[in-house]
Amino acid sequence: MTVKAYGAYASDKPLEAMDITRRAPGPHDVQIDIAFCGVCHSDLHTVRSEWAGTLYPCVPGHEIVGRVSAVGDHVHKHRVGDLVGVGCMVDSCQHCADCEEGLEQYCDGMVGTYNGATPDAPGHTLGGYSEKIVVHERFVLRVTHAEEQLAAVAPLLCAGITTYSPLRHWNAGPGKTVGIVGIGGLGHMGIKLARAMGAHVVAFTTSESKRADAHALGAHEVVVSRNAEEMAARAKSLDLIVNTVAAPHDLDAFLTLLKRDGTMVLVGAPESPHPSPQVFNLITKRRAIAGSMIGGIPETQEMLDFCAQHGIVADIEMIKADEINAAYERMLKGDVKYRFVIDSATLAA
Amino acid sequence: MTVKAYGAYASDKPLEAMDITRRAPGPHDVQIDIAFCGVCHSDLHTVRSEWAGTLYPCVPGHEIVGRVSAVGDHVHKHRVGDLVGVGCMVDSCQHCADCEEGLEQYCDGMVGTYNGATPDAPGHTLGGYSEKIVVHERFVLRVTHAEEQLAAVAPLLCAGITTYSPLRHWNAGPGKTVGIVGIGGLGHMGIKLARAMGAHVVAFTTSESKRADAHALGAHEVVVSRNAEEMAARAKSLDLIVNTVAAPHDLDAFLTLLKRDGTMVLVGAPESPHPSPQVFNLITKRRAIAGSMIGGIPETQEMLDFCAQHGIVADIEMIKADEINAAYERMLKGDVKYRFVIDSATLAA
Repeated sequence: MTVKAYGAYASDKPLEAMDITRRAPGPHDVQIDIAFCGVCHSDLHTVRSEWAGTLYPCVPGHEIVGRVSAVGDHVHKHRVGDLVGVGCMVDSCQHCADCEEGLEQYCDGMVGTYNGATPDAPGHTLGGYSEKIVVHERFVLRVTHAEEQLAAVAPLLCAGITTYSPLRHWNAGPGKTVGIVGIGGLGHMGIKLARAMGAHVVAFTTSESKRADAHALGAHEVVVSRNAEEMAARAKSLDLIVNTVAAPHDLDAFLTLLKRDGTMVLVGAPESPHPSPQVFNLITKRRAIAGSMIGGIPETQEMLDFCAQHGIVADIEMIKADEINAAYERMLKGDVKYRFVIDSATLAA
Repeated sequence: MTVKAYGAYASDKPLEAMDITRRAPGPHDVQIDIAFCGVCHSDLHTVRSEWAGTLYPCVPGHEIVGRVSAVGDHVHKHRVGDLVGVGCMVDSCQHCADCEEGLEQYCDGMVGTYNGATPDAPGHTLGGYSEKIVVHERFVLRVTHAEEQLAAVAPLLCAGITTYSPLRHWNAGPGKTVGIVGIGGLGHMGIKLARAMGAHVVAFTTSESKRADAHALGAHEVVVSRNAEEMAARAKSLDLIVNTVAAPHDLDAFLTLLKRDGTMVLVGAPESPHPSPQVFNLITKRRAIAGSMIGGIPETQEMLDFCAQHGIVADIEMIKADEINAAYERMLKGDVKYRFVIDSATLAA
């Protein structure tokens, strides 16, 4: 089946309209008519070959929502007409210890929604900047939000789960003080989610201009990280920090804000390393620096249900498919509140 | 009371015999006739001002064992004649959350056994390279090993607890595979302790020549970390790594050996930072890098009792007080199996 998509033929080429093929649904497959697809910073890194190993043509997009338009004979989890989502994964080995525990994102055989290995043409997966996608049912999530919220649900599939998973894993909740560093696509979700979990939320931004926004998103306190006095006032006060900033930066400035036994979880991978953190700041309070990557399928479903229950969606700016190159440039400047979402209907234009 | 000690008057001076004073025991104090004192790398760092803030004269030593020779009126925990030990701390605020939890080592008011603030002359604490010491009873540990083992018990008070605490905190035990990086004063204790806890122990050394020794200490497996094939064979296989190497080194080489959710605990603070670890290695398997500092007083007592029960002591080389400067030079070359211990009787010579 041929469908319209938006992608790039090379790292130095802009994204453009293209036709791609999708496999006919197999027995365990779900075919989805994509309604909206969020625009993640990973899309840009991949399409421009800023990470190693991009295969072309490259069609990015892993914050996918839409409606089921066909299912294979053995699919029981989803039905034609259901509202569903697909995140960063479309397959995994499905039998290793990680998969058995529902932590498919850590499976060595995990297949990314784009740029992953697949027998389908052209040999690598093509993502959500497209009209349709066909995905194994295990990797398709139920969406129970109201349909009019659907566009704003899309970013939950990556930005949402990427912050939800570490907040849950490291026990954010009542009685805990949680720092969220960076108020972008990931950070704005982190604030909303940590607040809804019952934690006391402290948002960190480099920019005075984001202070009011961070409060509006749900932060109990906002600290401008360039202000040494404000930072010093928070020393040794946080149980957990979810650090969403991928640009190389001084980790020690935040490590010292953790209480004894506190953890700073990095969810962004910088292109060049952060300055090396001081071991002393880890040792003297038994602190930790950890990493976390998206979330497993059961946890992603839990996150979507949690968000539906708490009325949580992303703050988005809708774009047409042919605005994607301009949107990337604005994203690089941080000029988006807080996530671009492609209206997939515009792919047909 | 004037007692004989060994210390330095300046960072560029060798250690030499000196007289120091000890306070008369207060109501909660225990006076200890020191029998032996272990020689820790921190002693050398401090006495040579390799860390900031050394005060002179400097008398190092925080692996102290001996016999109680006097107690204050309100001391109930210890009696004259008891075999006891003192580790890296001689006081703390005793009322903060850390102290309440028995984690005095993380108290902001923790007073080190040497170079810590004290009202006693000369205004900073003087350590265990001395004939006697007077310490608040809370910071005095019971020693239940046989008296003939006493010299080899001394290093448990720092090297022992520094490895015991992270092994316990991160749940080393049956079914867990634990890496111990570096086979020196700390690492040789880490191997013995992890083995006694029931873990599968993999020792890492840069030196082929230490392979047999590491097995003899109790390691189930020994990996020479300069051997890429041996390292690759251990990829993603360890639940926990206790990394005792303080010299700056490539942390990624060890991070990649951790399973998903594994933690590498650093217990040595390098003088200059380690090369910055790759965030990618943390994110893709939800790994963590943590720090840990000695252990609290209840845990130190638990460790001493555990060691007595399992027949664990350090491997030591006894020296006379006037051999300390030569011992430092040998320690810098790694030429000791695995801890020097000063025979305090030689201070009077």
